Amino acid sequence: MDFKTEFKPITVQPQQIEGKSFEIIDQEIGPHSFTKEQYPIVQRVIHASADFELGKRLLFHPDAIRAGIEAIKNGKKVVCDVQMVQVGISKPRLEKYGCEVKVYISDEDVIEEAKRLNTTRAIISMRKAVKEAEGGIFAIGNAPTALLELIRLVKEGEAKPGLIIGLPVGFVSAAESKEELAKLDIPFITNVGRKGGSTVTVAALNAISLLAERV
Amino acid sequence: MDFKTEFKPITVQPQQIEGKSFEIIDQEIGPHSFTKEQYPIVQRVIHASADFELGKRLLFHPDAIRAGIEAIKNGKKVVCDVQMVQVGISKPRLEKYGCEVKVYISDEDVIEEAKRLNTTRAIISMRKAVKEAEGGIFAIGNAPTALLELIRLVKEGEAKPGLIIGLPVGFVSAAESKEELAKLDIPFITNVGRKGGSTVTVAALNAISLLAERV
Repeated sequence: MDFKTEFKPITVQPQQIEGKSFEIIDQEIGPHSFTKEQYPIVQRVIHASADFELGKRLLFHPDAIRAGIEAIKNGKKVVCDVQMVQVGISKPRLEKYGCEVKVYISDEDVIEEAKRLNTTRAIISMRKAVKEAEGGIFAIGNAPTALLELIRLVKEGEAKPGLIIGLPVGFVSAAESKEELAKLDIPFITNVGRKGGSTVTVAALNAISLLAERV
Repeated sequence: MDFKTEFKPITVQPQQIEGKSFEIIDQEIGPHSFTKEQYPIVQRVIHASADFELGKRLLFHPDAIRAGIEAIKNGKKVVCDVQMVQVGISKPRLEKYGCEVKVYISDEDVIEEAKRLNTTRAIISMRKAVKEAEGGIFAIGNAPTALLELIRLVKEGEAKPGLIIGLPVGFVSAAESKEELAKLDIPFITNVGRKGGSTVTVAALNAISLLAERV
């Protein structure tokens, strides 16, 4: 069989591929107790990871979706822990509302301050972010240290995020940081366990900006 | 307990966190048949995903590691399908050998040509890449269409990659594209199934550049 002919019909229409993917997810996800508002986020996280276990272990604060949509509609900043999250996020929908997508981890002053205090750039970047992005959405996909520092700043009254999407991945501190996040009574989206990462964090944020456009 | 005190010891030393993570992976991975050369790539993929199933289903062409190291040492280009892969890749190690990390999907000429031919930018970006990056490493973490096009170009003699890291994720074409890659007799790293993505593709590439530095 000629290779080109074999694959062409299924590869050239990205919108069709996405629709077909969502159909497969709907068919295979099985029983769950997510609300109608939460489900599009679950669906996109599974789409980005091909991992039902990860998607089905998402946890939502009851106000998470509403708060995320509101932050976007009010043009609040989106703060990312790492550049991979920043570049993955769909910009046009956010720019319509005046939302900027920021990452502070490579800023000169963050690097300097981290050296001075002998700590991580992830931690210092959160200290800078909470000053510059009050009411914003914090999308943490990589660094548990960033999430733990953000949680500390919230507890100490130094941070007032609109929504925290906390989905860092890893074997040390990641699951623990997300457990701590899930104890807060502020809007959050997180998950249970070690899994997570930049791609699923991007998926969750993009799902919310799609909802913002629709409501 | 004071929050700061509780978490500080485990969060401020990134090198320690990585070492501890690798220990946990070694303890939990169980039986496998990866070679000594392949294992560091498996380890970093699991580290980036917290997913043993994904890591243990990696497939290596017998020449993959050697060819990847050689491409880096010869200063060949690293081509990424999407910007998330490009920004995630550690640059300093590659720059030592003169390797550039490229992504063509948002180039003006790629966008124009995709419109003209009514096809995807991912496909056209691979057509451009194979002309500009002969002998390079192709790191495909997102778009099955990019991988399928690259495979086609290899089969038709229009592409001579040094190594293909093909780990796209998804429900439509991703698993199939990787099955096709695994049939080629050229250096590849891929996996079985739907899982994959930008973060694990970055992890595989970074593992190889670390090996290049060590041998």
